[in-house]
This record gives sequence, structure tokens and C-alpha cells, in this order.
Amino acid sequence: MIFSRLLVIPGPIEVADEVLFANAHPSMSHVSPEFVPVLGQCIRMIRDVLFTKDAQPFLISGSGTLGWDQVAANLVEPGESALVLNSGYFGDGFADCLQTYGAKVDQINAEIGAAVSQSEIEKALKAKKYKVITFTHVDTSTGVLSDAKLIAETVRRVSPDTLVVMDAVCSVASEDIRMDAWDLDVVLTASQKGLGTPPGLSILLASQRAVKVFETRSTPVTSYYGGWNKWLPVMKAYENGVASYFATPPVNLIYAFHESLTQITKASPSIENRFKLHREASQRVKNAAIELGLKQVPLDPKHSANGMTALYYPEGFGAADFLPRFANRGVVVAGGLHSSIKDKYFRIGHMGITVADSTRGDVNSIITALKEVVAEAKSQRV
Amino acid sequence: MIFSRLLVIPGPIEVADEVLFANAHPSMSHVSPEFVPVLGQCIRMIRDVLFTKDAQPFLISGSGTLGWDQVAANLVEPGESALVLNSGYFGDGFADCLQTYGAKVDQINAEIGAAVSQSEIEKALKAKKYKVITFTHVDTSTGVLSDAKLIAETVRRVSPDTLVVMDAVCSVASEDIRMDAWDLDVVLTASQKGLGTPPGLSILLASQRAVKVFETRSTPVTSYYGGWNKWLPVMKAYENGVASYFATPPVNLIYAFHESLTQITKASPSIENRFKLHREASQRVKNAAIELGLKQVPLDPKHSANGMTALYYPEGFGAADFLPRFANRGVVVAGGLHSSIKDKYFRIGHMGITVADSTRGDVNSIITALKEVVAEAKSQRV
Repeated sequence: MIFSRLLVIPGPIEVADEVLFANAHPSMSHVSPEFVPVLGQCIRMIRDVLFTKDAQPFLISGSGTLGWDQVAANLVEPGESALVLNSGYFGDGFADCLQTYGAKVDQINAEIGAAVSQSEIEKALKAKKYKVITFTHVDTSTGVLSDAKLIAETVRRVSPDTLVVMDAVCSVASEDIRMDAWDLDVVLTASQKGLGTPPGLSILLASQRAVKVFETRSTPVTSYYGGWNKWLPVMKAYENGVASYFATPPVNLIYAFHESLTQITKASPSIENRFKLHREASQRVKNAAIELGLKQVPLDPKHSANGMTALYYPEGFGAADFLPRFANRGVVVAGGLHSSIKDKYFRIGHMGITVADSTRGDVNSIITALKEVVAEAKSQRV
Repeated sequence: MIFSRLLVIPGPIEVADEVLFANAHPSMSHVSPEFVPVLGQCIRMIRDVLFTKDAQPFLISGSGTLGWDQVAANLVEPGESALVLNSGYFGDGFADCLQTYGAKVDQINAEIGAAVSQSEIEKALKAKKYKVITFTHVDTSTGVLSDAKLIAETVRRVSPDTLVVMDAVCSVASEDIRMDAWDLDVVLTASQKGLGTPPGLSILLASQRAVKVFETRSTPVTSYYGGWNKWLPVMKAYENGVASYFATPPVNLIYAFHESLTQITKASPSIENRFKLHREASQRVKNAAIELGLKQVPLDPKHSANGMTALYYPEGFGAADFLPRFANRGVVVAGGLHSSIKDKYFRIGHMGITVADSTRGDVNSIITALKEVVAEAKSQRV
């Protein structure tokens, strides 16, 4: 660390020095024999993070948002129906994206702080045939954690052909995700959250069922840059050690991603241990908040993310009372994002090396700052 | 430089140490008061590189290819006509992209090594009304340089409302481009060529005429991630020093881009001098090739790029005779890309610090390697 500033927003997160160093790799050709296996190994390692044997990864230069376009443009044909489980800001976005590419979208809106209930999902799936169902695993705007396993089970039972699409931007590598065992069709994410890499990489894994749906679609793909018709041969080639070209991959960022994936999949005692560290750190932050009398945005602790904490300001306090006081202590947290409650809450991220590298003491720093900020805000208000 | 390897393909190019260092910047919030002006300054500096006062830049995480999607999805409504001047591999791609988003595309194909002639352009524009005309300023597959000023003049005279779209992925910062004076409507590029930054940033500038065409379109934008309806408010906000969110920008890469833009616009004696250095280096490489009896892919020296050189192998020789011999000397050049002549030629890039920082001696290294490779290939064949 060059600056004595602790970045604990729910992404981008603190990035390990080795990963930053890899991002400064000397410039390399994207088709060189040195680089090809690096991208190939990233494809294999991201499968390990999600416990999948044969899902097809797509690693494309772009923000996490590009994953929505990939789903909308490759898996849903114009006029087909999509069901969006909306647990916050990012549900709105995914619905908007699907409509842009011609899907007919129905939404089930959860109340703020809640996930959509199983009975509502079941009812909707029985009433209408959907090509895809989408949900946000952890909605970064609220910290609500949806029960991915239960949602996937419900879909398979009630509407077996509906593709289960999980927006896992704020959950991959901070929540335990079993893509094959839970039978998820798409897991999409980005590099800058639990995966501990600078932003700029859209990461999406598609089940073989999803790939088949893509391959047998009857109308042309509706995106060019996000088209799997362009990227599938490229990803397969790189995994097989052969260079291929559609658009230039973000070479340096792939080196950085490779380093972070290596740390996540190999350097820790196990990846399960990494998830345990996230759960423990999360509990510590949440317990400290409870002791201070702060209320979480998620209504049910079971539906509360392990990589972030969303907390309402105490009655009578707002962003101006809290955020600058965190900043004065060198701790960067995030304000609200969900439009209905934007000015009423703030968010703390605790993902990646902040929880996995205990020598950093980041979780202690977060809790200390939280206690001091609440005390100072209250004392200066009296 | 950590490795003693010289990367002289036509992008990615050699990146200055200061730019690599900036790419390893400690992780920062994309909405922090420290980062917001960095992105804002990039927006202003890229205008300076293209000599435009009021064109609207879009800096979006993605490959250069994403610029095609932006044009196709924001400026052309489904069913409208586009004219593609095709001088190589990248003309094919742009046409494919426009069709993906519903444009009706006509193409004028130049013969290999040539640009489309003015009389053909004039004839096509008189025969039919086109919403946009696109051309590749430097086609990376052939090294053909189109006469951007002449094309724009011709369009304005014959079909004043047609938007002039220039794919300048392989020409920005290596060719002198006057966006306002030539009256170009779109200049699109990427970070990893003349702009001397690692790959991963789609850079596009739209004239106020183009922005107005976008704002007055009658059908919805056909891309979500590439939609200017999402990005225009974000770009305006950052330029005004205010954070805004649609999708997370590639923060580290923006720091790197900022450093490279600073070197290009401020550190050199002048940006005009930088273009002069590109012309001189290009002439040196091309003269050396002529002395060795090698034929350029571009048929007319006037239509030959200043940032790269495409050369046919001598009669009876191929990639296997040349590319490994360059590699043995630590000089990384590129093979052919244009499908019709793929195995008959190779490409050398000479952009960015390779030509602007004479202390590196890169141009000498290129010429020495070229001479040695030709001599060795010929001697071992006899």
C-alpha cells in the first residue's frame, strides 16, 4: 500500500500488491505464446471458484454491466419473456437491459431489504412460460442476499426449461456459490469485487444448457461486441492454447486477474476457508453495528450478504454526519444507492484481502472507525 | 522495461514505464473526489489530441470494437442505410456490426492495398441517401491510410447530412487528425495503439451534429451497455467534476490513460512534433524495406500509414522464414491478418514511445532486425 487509505466500499475493493504489479506487466501481444496460456488458465481457474466442471466462461473487456447485455442479446430472442426478481437498484437495470434487446419483461419487486419469496416465484412461473429468470445474488445497493440454491430448485421443479441467470457481481468469491450442484445456467460478475482485481473485466459463465439454447436460437444475436457467436470460438481457442482474434483482450488486466485467481484458488488453505473468512468478518462488522444500535437494510439476517454491510444512519443523522468522518479516518465507505432510501443509509464492503489477509487488520480498522464515527457524530450533535 | 523484448506489432505497443506504474495505482473508488477529476481531464485531453473544441468524448471500458457498436446502436436506426468504405479486414467487421443492429449496409470494396476512390464515393452518395458513411483511417490489416479530409469534404459537398464516421483505432496519436477542421462526426479508437496505454478502453468522440442526431432519433437505442442515453450524462458529470454512475469505469486504466495523454499533449515539444516523429520513423522503416527489395502492401505511398508498415515476404518466403527469426532477436512483429493474403505478408508497428522516445533506439532495432532477418532467411535458403 502506497496510500494510508482503506478502500472498503462494496467494490472496487483493496487490491493485493502482487495483483497491482501484474497490472503493470510490460506490454505484450495478445496473440503471443506467453500470453495465450495466461488467458487459458484464467478460464480454468474461474471455473474452480464457482465449482463448475464444464460451464463456458466468457472473459471480455468491459464492466460487469456488459454481462446483462450478453444475457439479453444471446439467450433471449426478441419477443420472448423474461422474469426479473427485483431486490434493488440492479434488478431495475437488468430489466431495462433485457427490454432494450426486445425481451418482454415481468418483474417481481421485493420490498426494500427483502428478497423475493419462493411462493411468489412459484406463482409467476406457473402462470407463464419464461425463457429466463434473473435475480441479483447480492444486490450491491441493499446488501440483500438471495437464496440462489432455493431459487434454482424452484425453477427446475416448476419450469425446468427456464434458464436461471444469477447476477453475481457482488458475490463471486465472497459467497459460496455451487454452479453445478445448484444447477445455475448463468453466473455473471466483474473483476473489481470479491475477485480482487481492478475494474474492467466482464466475467460470465454459461452452463452447457445455456450454450445449447444460444446455439439453437432461431434469430440472429442482437449484440455485436457482446455476441457469443464472436466470443465462443475465441474462448475455446485460448483454453486450448491457441491464439484467436475478435477484439483485443485487456492483456494487462488478464495478467492481474490471473494473479488474483491464483491467490484465491491456490494460495489460501482452501477456497472454502476463504468463504468462511468472509462470513466471520461479516458477522464481526454486523455485531459491532448491532451493539451501536444501527439497523441493517436487509430485514432478515439470513438474507444478508457476507461481503458487505448496509446500515441505516441513526434517526436524525445523515450522510453528512457519517461519510466525512469516515474519510477523516482514512476509511472510504459508500453512501446509499437505492433511490427510495438513498440518503438514509451507507454501505461498507468487506471482501477479498480485507478479510482474507488478517495481517492487514482491515476489519479491525473498519470496526474502530465505525465506533468512533458514531460516537463523534452523536457527541457533536448533542 | 523488465524484459528485453521489443513489442512492435501494430498494437498493443510498447507502454512507457510511467504509464505502467499508473496502471498499478492503489485501488480507488470510481466516485471519489481524487478520481473524478482524473477522468474529467482525460475527456479534455483527448479533445486536444484530435484538435476538437466541442466534440463529446465517450470513454468506456471495452475494446476498440465497442466503438462500432456505439455507432451502430446510437446513430443508425433499424432499417436506415449505411455506406461502408472497405479497405480491409476492419471494414468487413464494421459492416457486420452495423447489420447486427439493423442497418442496411452497402459496401464499396477497395482492391487489396488501396483505399476507396473519391469518384466511387461520390457516385454512391449521389445514388442513395445514407445515414452514415464509415471508413477505416488506417486499416491495421493492410496499413492502408485513407484520406480522411478528402472523404469528409466529399460527403459534405454531395450529401451534407450524412454522418462521417472514422474508425481511427490504428491512427489516433500516430496520424495528424483534425476533427473540427475536417468536419468529422465520429472518431473512434482504442487505448493500446498510438495512445500508448494498455488495452481495455473504448474511446469515441462524437461531433455536436452526431450528438444531435442521437438525441433526436425516433426509436429507442438498440444497445444497453453501449447506449449513449446511459453514458452521455455520466461523461458530462465527470467533466464537470461530479461523480455519476452507470457502470464502473476501469479506474486503474483511466489513471494509465491520463499519464499517457499527459505525455502526449504536454511532455512533447508539441503534438505536431509527435506526428512528425511518426512520419520520419515510418519513412526510415519503409526506406529500409525498399532497399531490401521488400514490397509494401499499400499500393500508393500516399495511402501508406505512418504508424505501421505492412510488407510482403520476398517471393518464395513465408511467415515461418521471417517471424521466428524476428522472435529470436527479441523483436515481436505481427503476421498477416487480411484473409486474402494472410500468409503472404507481415506487419511492423512504429507508434508511441517507440518513435517518440529516441533514447530507446527502437527504430534502429527494428531496421537492424529487418536487415538481419532478410539476410539470414535468404542465406539459409540458398
